[in-house]
Formats: sequence, C-alpha cells, structure tokens
Amino acid sequence: MSGANTFGRSFCVTTFGESHGPAIGCVIDGCPPGIVIAPEDFRADLDRRATGRSRFTSQRREADEVEILSGVYQGRSTGTPIALLIRNTDARSKDYGAITESFRPGHADYTYWHKYGIRDPRGGGRSSARETTMRVAAAVIAKRYLAEHHQIRIQAWLSGIGPFRPQRFEPESIEDNPLFWPDPQQLPELEAFMDGLRKSGDSVGARLSVMAENVPVGLGEPIYGKLDSDIAMALMSINAVKAVEIGDGVEVCEQRGSEHRDELTAAGFLSNHAGGILGGISSGQTIIAHATIKPTSSILVPGRSVNLAGEAVELVTRGRHDPCVGIRAVPIIEAMIALVLMDHVLRHRAQCGDVLAQTPRLPSVTLPPEL
Amino acid sequence: MSGANTFGRSFCVTTFGESHGPAIGCVIDGCPPGIVIAPEDFRADLDRRATGRSRFTSQRREADEVEILSGVYQGRSTGTPIALLIRNTDARSKDYGAITESFRPGHADYTYWHKYGIRDPRGGGRSSARETTMRVAAAVIAKRYLAEHHQIRIQAWLSGIGPFRPQRFEPESIEDNPLFWPDPQQLPELEAFMDGLRKSGDSVGARLSVMAENVPVGLGEPIYGKLDSDIAMALMSINAVKAVEIGDGVEVCEQRGSEHRDELTAAGFLSNHAGGILGGISSGQTIIAHATIKPTSSILVPGRSVNLAGEAVELVTRGRHDPCVGIRAVPIIEAMIALVLMDHVLRHRAQCGDVLAQTPRLPSVTLPPEL
Amino acid sequence: MSGANTFGRSFCVTTFGESHGPAIGCVIDGCPPGIVIAPEDFRADLDRRATGRSRFTSQRREADEVEILSGVYQGRSTGTPIALLIRNTDARSKDYGAITESFRPGHADYTYWHKYGIRDPRGGGRSSARETTMRVAAAVIAKRYLAEHHQIRIQAWLSGIGPFRPQRFEPESIEDNPLFWPDPQQLPELEAFMDGLRKSGDSVGARLSVMAENVPVGLGEPIYGKLDSDIAMALMSINAVKAVEIGDGVEVCEQRGSEHRDELTAAGFLSNHAGGILGGISSGQTIIAHATIKPTSSILVPGRSVNLAGEAVELVTRGRHDPCVGIRAVPIIEAMIALVLMDHVLRHRAQCGDVLAQTPRLPSVTLPPEL
Amino acid sequence: MSGANTFGRSFCVTTFGESHGPAIGCVIDGCPPGIVIAPEDFRADLDRRATGRSRFTSQRREADEVEILSGVYQGRSTGTPIALLIRNTDARSKDYGAITESFRPGHADYTYWHKYGIRDPRGGGRSSARETTMRVAAAVIAKRYLAEHHQIRIQAWLSGIGPFRPQRFEPESIEDNPLFWPDPQQLPELEAFMDGLRKSGDSVGARLSVMAENVPVGLGEPIYGKLDSDIAMALMSINAVKAVEIGDGVEVCEQRGSEHRDELTAAGFLSNHAGGILGGISSGQTIIAHATIKPTSSILVPGRSVNLAGEAVELVTRGRHDPCVGIRAVPIIEAMIALVLMDHVLRHRAQCGDVLAQTPRLPSVTLPPEL
Repeated sequence: MSGANTFGRSFCVTTFGESHGPAIGCVIDGCPPGIVIAPEDFRADLDRRATGRSRFTSQRREADEVEILSGVYQGRSTGTPIALLIRNTDARSKDYGAITESFRPGHADYTYWHKYGIRDPRGGGRSSARETTMRVAAAVIAKRYLAEHHQIRIQAWLSGIGPFRPQRFEPESIEDNPLFWPDPQQLPELEAFMDGLRKSGDSVGARLSVMAENVPVGLGEPIYGKLDSDIAMALMSINAVKAVEIGDGVEVCEQRGSEHRDELTAAGFLSNHAGGILGGISSGQTIIAHATIKPTSSILVPGRSVNLAGEAVELVTRGRHDPCVGIRAVPIIEAMIALVLMDHVLRHRAQCGDVLAQTPRLPSVTLPPEL
Repeated sequence: MSGANTFGRSFCVTTFGESHGPAIGCVIDGCPPGIVIAPEDFRADLDRRATGRSRFTSQRREADEVEILSGVYQGRSTGTPIALLIRNTDARSKDYGAITESFRPGHADYTYWHKYGIRDPRGGGRSSARETTMRVAAAVIAKRYLAEHHQIRIQAWLSGIGPFRPQRFEPESIEDNPLFWPDPQQLPELEAFMDGLRKSGDSVGARLSVMAENVPVGLGEPIYGKLDSDIAMALMSINAVKAVEIGDGVEVCEQRGSEHRDELTAAGFLSNHAGGILGGISSGQTIIAHATIKPTSSILVPGRSVNLAGEAVELVTRGRHDPCVGIRAVPIIEAMIALVLMDHVLRHRAQCGDVLAQTPRLPSVTLPPEL
Repeated sequence: MSGANTFGRSFCVTTFGESHGPAIGCVIDGCPPGIVIAPEDFRADLDRRATGRSRFTSQRREADEVEILSGVYQGRSTGTPIALLIRNTDARSKDYGAITESFRPGHADYTYWHKYGIRDPRGGGRSSARETTMRVAAAVIAKRYLAEHHQIRIQAWLSGIGPFRPQRFEPESIEDNPLFWPDPQQLPELEAFMDGLRKSGDSVGARLSVMAENVPVGLGEPIYGKLDSDIAMALMSINAVKAVEIGDGVEVCEQRGSEHRDELTAAGFLSNHAGGILGGISSGQTIIAHATIKPTSSILVPGRSVNLAGEAVELVTRGRHDPCVGIRAVPIIEAMIALVLMDHVLRHRAQCGDVLAQTPRLPSVTLPPEL
Repeated sequence: MSGANTFGRSFCVTTFGESHGPAIGCVIDGCPPGIVIAPEDFRADLDRRATGRSRFTSQRREADEVEILSGVYQGRSTGTPIALLIRNTDARSKDYGAITESFRPGHADYTYWHKYGIRDPRGGGRSSARETTMRVAAAVIAKRYLAEHHQIRIQAWLSGIGPFRPQRFEPESIEDNPLFWPDPQQLPELEAFMDGLRKSGDSVGARLSVMAENVPVGLGEPIYGKLDSDIAMALMSINAVKAVEIGDGVEVCEQRGSEHRDELTAAGFLSNHAGGILGGISSGQTIIAHATIKPTSSILVPGRSVNLAGEAVELVTRGRHDPCVGIRAVPIIEAMIALVLMDHVLRHRAQCGDVLAQTPRLPSVTLPPEL
C-alpha cells in the first residue's frame, strides 16, 4: 500500500519536494537489478523538459544535476531503492507575501489551502510542474530497461497548439524544432503565433500525442489495472492535463463499428483505431495516446480573485511566463508512458511468467496517416 | 496492496465473475459502519443499467437479484466486508466452439489469449461489460453515504450519439427517455437514427457526461492520487471508453488562459471551465467529466479476422446486438464517479481530519450553458 | 492499495463472511493461469481444519462444500479472479439476545463494539475463526502451484499443548493422530490430559510449528516485505495467536553468536538456527516457524464481565467447547505459509526475473533434532 | 500499492540508502498537516539509537544530522511528502575485496547475492541496521502527533540479555543506564557479563519489551490489518529479530483459559494478559509487545564459510564489534510501534470517523508485575 505520491505497483516511484524548497527527489522501489545507470544518463531528457530551451518557454535556468543517493553500485542498479536528488539552485528566498494572501485564479492555491489548512507559496510549492522533473528522471531508467529488454521506443510530439493541427507527420523532424512539431512546413506560421501570444501576455492550450512501438502483446491487467486506464491516470496526473485519449479518442463517437474495429489478417492488423489496446491489454500494435493541456493561468492579463479574508482583489502573475506550457510536457508524457509500461512488464511476468501463448504476434500497423 | 480487480484505497471494491459463468459478485472492504442497506436498494440503478430497457439495447433479460452475503446485520453495514452476489440466470450452456477458434476483431479475445494462454469464451468471459453490474451495485452504497453525509448528487447523461449533440440541456428530462438524452426535442430524429443503425446491423459511438454536485472542497490527493487522475482511471476502466475529459476537456487546446481560468469573486466562481478540480483537488464547484465510448464491434456486418492457427477467417457476431452501447453506460459512469468520491472522502479524513480551513467555501457556478 | 481483508500483494486473497451469516467466501486475484482446480481439491485440507474431527474439538459439523464461482474454465485457472463460496449450513437462526447485551471476556466483542458501534453477535461474526476456512481453501491453490513449480512441501504440527512438549520428532506420525502430535509415545498421556480439560470445562494454550521444504533461495523483499516479517504478520493474523517465532525464536536470547550463526561449507549449511531466512530473504534451507496460541476464552467456567450499560455481569459461554483450539490451527498455519510463499514467488519474478545468480544453491540442513 | 521499502498504508514511510553509500533517507507520505517539526527534534531519539553510546556498543560515530528536504514550511508539516536526509559521514571509501569474495555466516550476503545477482558490500549495504535510523527519524513525527492528539506514550526496555532477566520493573530507571535495563540492582552483574563477552569477541541475544499507554480503543483492522499482526510484521522487520510476542506471548501455551482471559468489571479490566489487543483491535488497555533479537554474527570468533567459487574459507569479521546489538534496538522498537499506531489512527478515522460508541472506555490495568 502506498501514499498518493507513489506511482506504480511493481516499479514504484515516489516523488517529493516543492518547487522552491531545498530540493526535489524520488525513490524508485522494485527496480530490477543490473541496469546500467550513471548520473549523466539523466541529462538528455531533463534538458528536453527544462525551462529555457527556447524563447517559447519561461526562463528558469537550473543545472538540474542528479545525484544518485542509493541503489546503484559500480554503475549498476542493485535491486534496492534508487534515490535521486536534485537541489533547487534557483529557489531564491523572497517575499511571497502578496501571493500568500490571495488565491490565483486557475491555480491550486485555493484547493490546497482548503485541504491542508496550510499554504506553501514557494513557487507553487508541491503543485508546481517542477515535480515532473523527477518523473522524467525516474523514467530514464525505465526507458533504458524497456529498450534493452523489449526494444520499446517511446516518442511524443505536439499535435495541437491553439487552433493549429499538423497537416503532415514527419517523425524525424520532431526533435529538430523547439516546438516538437511534426510538420516542419507549419513552423514559421506557428512561431509567429507564439510570438504574438507572448507579447499579449496571454497563453494557449495544447494537445500532445505519444506512441510506444514494440510493446509486447499481453501487458495490462483487467479490470482496474487496465493498460489504458493506467495510462489515463498517468497522463491526467500531469499538471494542466484536462483530457486523455487512447487511439482515435474522442473521434470514436462518430465512428461506426464496422469502421472502428481493427480487422485482422494473417499479415497483421489492418488498422489501429484502438491505439494498441484491446480489453485493457496491449495487442502488440503501436500504443497511441493523447493528452490535452489547458492554457496556463500564470499570465500577465489581470484577473479577478479573492484574498484570505474573502475580499475581491485583482491579480497579475508576475515573473516567468510560458505562452504554451504544453511544449515542455513532451518528455513528461513520454516519461509517464514509460513508467506505466515498465510497471506492467514487471506485473505481467509476476502473474503470467509461465504462459507461452501459441499464436504468433501479428505485425502492427505503421503509425496512422490520420493525426 | 491489491490485485487489479480491486478499485479504491479506502473504500475498496473487488469484483469477480464472468459474463456466462455461474455468478458475478463483489466485495466492498472499508465501508463505514451504520449505512442502511437492503437488497431492494440495488434495484433502481441495476434496472437503469440493465439490457433490455428499450428497443435500442440488446435483449439479455436477467433478474439480477442481489444477494447480500456478509457485512450487513439488521439492515445496517457493520464495517466488515460486504459481499454482494448475482447469479447469472441467462448464462445458457452452449457451444462456443466457433468463437473459441477465432479472434473477433475489436474484442479482447486476442489479447486475453496472448496474456493468459487460456480462453474463456463464455459471453466474453471477464472482459464482458457484465462485470460493470457489480460496480453499479457497489456504488449504490457509496451514493447513499455521499448523499446522506454530504448531500452529493451525481447525474450522467448522453452528450453525443454518432454525429448528434444536444442543443439544449434540460436535466429533468434525462431520466424520462430511454436514451438519457437532455434535449427532448431531438428525440424523434435520434430515434430514427437509431432504428436505421439497428437495421443496418452496424453500431455507433457515444459521448457521456456526468456531474457531481455539492462535492466538498478538498477531495483529492496530489500527486498520483489526484481526483481528476482517479476519475480518468475510473472512467477509462469502463469497457469501450476511449477518452476521458474533465471540465472543458479537449476544448482547452483552443482556449486562451484569460478565458479558461475561472475567476473568483466574493460571490463565487465566475465560470467552471476546470470542471470543479484545481491541482487535482476538488474546488467546491460542480465536478464535470466526460467519457467517449467506441462503437461496439459486436455487429452483424461481417469482418475479417484470423483463427488460432493464424489462418484468415470471416466473422459475424451473432446473438444480441446493441447499436449504441454507450446508452447503458449512464449508471456505470455515475457509479465510478461515486466510487472515486467515496474513496476520497474517506482518504481525506484520514490525513486531514484535523484541518479546519478558515475561508468559506464559495458557491459553484450552475451547470454550464455550454454542453 | 487494498482493504484490510486482503492478504498478499501479487497473489491477493480477499475473504468475506461472518460465522453465522449466509455464507463465507474469498476472491483470489493475480492467480497464474493454467492451474488445475476442481471443487473436490479443497476437501482434504478443509477436513483437516474442520471442527468435529475428534472428541478433542467442538461439534460444529458442516459440509463446507466449496463452489467455484469464477476464474476457472474447463478445470483450469484463467488468470481472472477466482471466487470461492461456502454456504453456512449450520448457521441456525437463534436468539443471541443475552450475548448481545454483554461483552464476553477475552473476546473481540468489546473491541468490535467500540470500533464499529455495531454488534453482529452471530457466532462471533467476522471475528470468528470460521473466516480461516477461506484461507485454507485459497491456500489449496497456492500449495498446488508451489508443489508443481518448485516442489515445495509444507507441513505443520503441534509442538506444545499446555505443559507438554514432544520428546521426539517423527514426521510421518503427524497426520496419523488427531492431535497432529509428532511424538506418538506421548499420545496416551496427552489424551488423558485433554479429557481432563474437557471435563473441567477449561481450555489450554498450544504451540504449533511449521516447515516449508525446497523453498528456493531469494524469496523475500527487504525492508518491509521481508519473508520473515510477512510470515510474522500472516501467523499473527490467525485468531488467538500471541507469538510468532522464526527458526530458534525466543531461544536466541540465550545463544552466543558463535553458536547461532549457521556456518557454511561446500557441502551445505552446518545448522539451521535461522530457520531458513537471512536478512529477510530465503536462504534455500528449510523454512521453520512457530506460533503460540492462547487458550480459548469460550469456556464453561463462569467469568466476570460488564454489559452494555456498564454493569457487572457473570457470563458462561454455552454451546461448543474446544479444550485446545490450537489443534485445528495446523492446516491454517500451513495455509498462511503457502500464501506468503506464493505471493513472494510471484513478487520475486516481477523484480528479479532476469537474474541468474552464479553460485550454486547449497543443500539444507535436515529438520533439526531440537524441537 | 507500494514497494517493499514502504511501511504503512495511510502514514507511509519509504526508506532508502545503504550503510556506506552517500546517504540514507526517508519520505513520509500522508502525514497530517500542521505538525510542528524542526531538525533538532530528531536529535534525542537518534542519539538513543546511535552507536557509540557506551562501551557496550560499537564505535561508529556519526553526526546524523537530519536535513528536512520537503513537506515542512515555516516549521509545520504541510501535508505534502516529508523527505528527510542524513549524509553518511563515516562511510570511508575502502577496499571491500575480501568480504566481497566470501559469504559471512549469519549475514544477508548470501541471500542478497542469490536474489539480486549483485553484491553491494559497503558496510552490509541495504541489509545493515543503519537503515533503521530513518525509521527512528520518521517515528519522531508520529510520536509527536500521537502524544499531542491522544496522549499516547511509548517506552521500550531490555527484558533479557543472554540468561539475565530483570527481577523488578522500575520504569523510571530505564533511561538512566546504557542498557535500558529496568532493574538497576542487576546492573553491576550485567555489566561484568557484557565486559566478559566483549573480551571473548563473542555476542549474545536479547529480549526487548515495549508498552504503549493511552492507546484509544478501536485501532486495528480485521482480518489482515490487525493491530497485532501489523505489530508482528513491524517488529520482525527489524534486523536480527527472530520472535515477536503480544501480551503474555509464548507463555500462553501453558495458561488455562480461565487464567488468560482478562475479566472485566465496571472499574476496568482485571488483568492484561492479552497485551491490550482483542480480535486484532486495541482494547484501550496498555499495549505490550516483545521482540527477541539474535546474537550478531559479526564477531571476532572465526567461522567457516564459502567464497563465490564455492570453496571453503574461514572468516573473521573485523572492525566494529557489538556484543549485544539488542541494546541499540530500544528506540527502533519504539519507532515501529509508533509508526503502526500512527498508521492505524489515520486508517481508523477513514472508515469509522462517524462512529460514536456508547459505552465508556474502561481503565487499563497498570503495567503488569510479571515482566
């Protein structure tokens, strides 16, 4: 049994830390022994997530140096808990007085106050997206195991920014632009849009998509540990996410059964509307999921609110401003998919390690032309 | 720790049973003592869920008599596990031979086979929506507690069938029509559409919405036990659900921050785009969530598939046919919301039973005009 | 996370039911698929546990017919939850009025009342040892898996009744006498003692020992999932158990380190003071544990107590009388050891399924001459 | 759900760290908000546990400075995870070559190697008692809550060292001598015994007892979350513990039912053989438990063993030598009792927060004259 700050049943990640407290960190329990891990392995994904990557994201610049406190000996995981620590070097001691006295619209200030009766205003405290840094760090280990043992490859991208949708899908271009956008021809238009947003002091929502290739058939535990329900929980737990879709997602409302069902032939599935999951269990097709992220409420446009005394106030969020927080969520969404898959790989062999299903796994449909 | 067939951490519901096995049932552990419970209390919601309510749903007709096996004495819960049992009276012994040899497209047949190496063809076995009967039964107890102790009221409806969307929202009409549709003026058109579907042997997807009124502020545990991530997990665990949205859901992609954030005044919130949850914790506003359900693959239109030997076959699903399985999901979605809220009510008082937040709870915005 | 009526993390057994309610049952979640299971397989161990085996145990005689409600198809486990049900045929409807009004000394009456505010007097309700029937039933499946996949064999016996201790250990005689006593020469003396007890209306305590042979090295998860701490929890959860010992148990207080440590040679361990567990992990030696059970308070000797009004009363427990409830605990203790081992076999392969330790497993010391 | 390094269901403590790695630490999840906590609050109990307190314990001397990394703001718990960190200042980098090649008798070397296939020799790695430091630290917070909200007071002492047993019980003298021994008149004799042991290079076992006063009636969740089974699990999880007893413990084997049952009168219970727990639920009497600890195998007397190649070797444990490791376990056992009680206080109000039992709680028997 565990607290609410732990993710996973077999590969258990517990995170801790406030945005502007002394440090953030995580403990990974249940990690298989023998995985090669070094402090520098966390660099790439933490950089992808880091604020300050481009002019489209806010300006917090931290070293985010990961210290491995336990669970690794001579460069390999030992099977004991792996604790990772990152000191908050950008956590300036300052006066939070004004913020402390009022509730910012669209923030967790109001709900944390009512739940806990105590307010930790330091950069949003525990409700800040800073926490997701540790999800990304923990997932580096999961990704390595999944890649080495199952050749699983996970890639996320932006599939929506405000009114924009990609018109073509060029996977190799995703990592080549600061917006993780798969349609390079749209970039000039998009960047102009983002610049305009930034100048207006407002923000916009985003949609992210993720695919996991080479996921073996059989992952997921019905009924309440389904692979898709765990993905839904995992993605919805990311700050600002308001919708999670699997495969064709909200589009299935308008589909016919004869269109949606993915027919099978000896040569493989003929389509992948299901997003690689049937009955809560991976089908061997590429897993596809989507998350929609709200526009951040930390904007320069003044807003109405109340203070602790219940009186009306007008608030402006000062400091960093992210016109589209969804951009930074790309490695976070990948991380959550990796943690879900890693957990289910271990859970599956706990219960079904003796099973040898006799039919061959069918080839997956290549990533859909529809976006 | 628990198995995958258990839902909840404090109010724990474990379900069991196959669609055409001897019985289905559940065990509710952690239920507060003193709740008044009688076998007839389950009738209303089970009837709402039951197949055979109208010509738009399939024809399985079962008594679904709930037997209370434990945990209730002299009409009240005792605090010990409440076991509920329903015998499957419609589970005809028959020859499943043909189905057993092939994989139905869009069904869990293929994935269960690969996961477990064993196939239970009896009416879909464990992957059948029959399992949801016990969620509805368990939630009857949760709903009663939530109503009596917190005046919480939960109501779901259909907000999409194929291409149709309600044009107006008349809550009082939802329970008056077999489609749980909130816009009575559209019913003739909708019924004609459904009749056409049924004749064609095809099916269509649906979107459901649910609201929970009078939810106290403070429910939900960051980070991985957020109220919205638990709702996402709960709704995605329902058969055929492919998308879960909170509040404005996928629409937030196109919103601006200045539009989305729900401003506060001394008289209450000015809007409810967030769907009643901020930072994973209930805000005291009405909780609003949505689920999109795929069109069932159990249709009369023949489809291509493979058999156990990997050879191509053509399959038609015989027997019952539901043109839109989403209709029956209304009480199921209500049930899952009730189970999530019940669990969090108990979890909240475990950790925060000493807290008395000093600010008053603000009034909620009435259910949004946008649908 | 799970309720308090669930045992195990990977092989999860949830029990329900009151002693004199309609039925008792259990749900086994996480069971590997493919295990051969038939209703008659439960017979032997349930008979060993049953009341009424000899004149030394009380007279409740129930058929204890196990019905398999789910999770088994064509005689094999399918991987879905296995629900087992036993109807209480001996649950006479009667007037519990007198008992309901007072608290029996040494019973759970008093504590259940204060915890739940509700009293279920039917044969002790949930606190009755009747619940352990389902542990024994669930463990039949675990024992079969452990025997087939690991050749694990579990045997318990009585190693103390009142002042008596066996003077020799003849394992083959344990199942040949109604006291599960390993020293047949003492039986006449013991039976005379038991007859005297029964006539006096009093009861006496007992000590039980259990060994598990062929347990593979490596089971157990430090720090809070150690094999010995899980055994301690499992045995202490049995009604009336007041002490749990591993290996030499309470005797280690007087041992020297040079005596206690089990030295190793290339031919195997030289002793087994540790009881087969080092650092919380099985060493490959025979696992040995002990439980001490209090004398039942359900005796014919009148005792002082209070009623609901707090007034002094004198109580006599009428009905069945067991002079030594420890006798019936033999299959229950075996069952709990089986459930712990089964759970850890699955948990171990979840985390460490990739590990191939290079040193050979050493032979175990044969069961110790010391008793 | 959680990993094996997490203790508790509602008040969840996850520990990490190796004895000679960079640091040890813990994360406390589910802690009620508002508890006053400062770094210096951990000092007293950590000092009681620390090695080097007297000539009877080994010489590791560490500052054990606790750093609070999260979950505390302006001196109070906020409800978010509390992370505590202690740097290992005594973790000299050295050559563990010889130890790494062989298995020390009576240590976890052998089992960790077989389980994980990886050996972390740094001071025993994760299996070292160093881990218990974090249990003591976490329990400081639990003890404060239990004292402030329930006036619960927890005290442990040594009730056995080798062949010695206290002849009288003077609670006020426990903290006045380095052996936590309740019979001051025996101290000269005991100290001479300990000095002899130290000179011989051998070690001896110990028995510890603990009492918790003012525990409210009603804590504990039948069936597998009983207060006594959780205590059994908690105490057995402490390094070197081989037996756990509740109340009269192993003595109950020889008791009669008429003697053991604790009779009740309007003035209170007449005895406390049960140790304050009936049916797994606290009775309101003082809770009494005992643990027996084996003699450490880290002694100067050479012992036979094998190396990684399976060849016979002779080993002597060099470095620190503790003639009786049980002495240092006093605050650890108190800590585990505090963690169990804290967890159950929160769990109890989750399920039973609405209950108001009508009968008054009876006074407890004062700590028994029997030791």
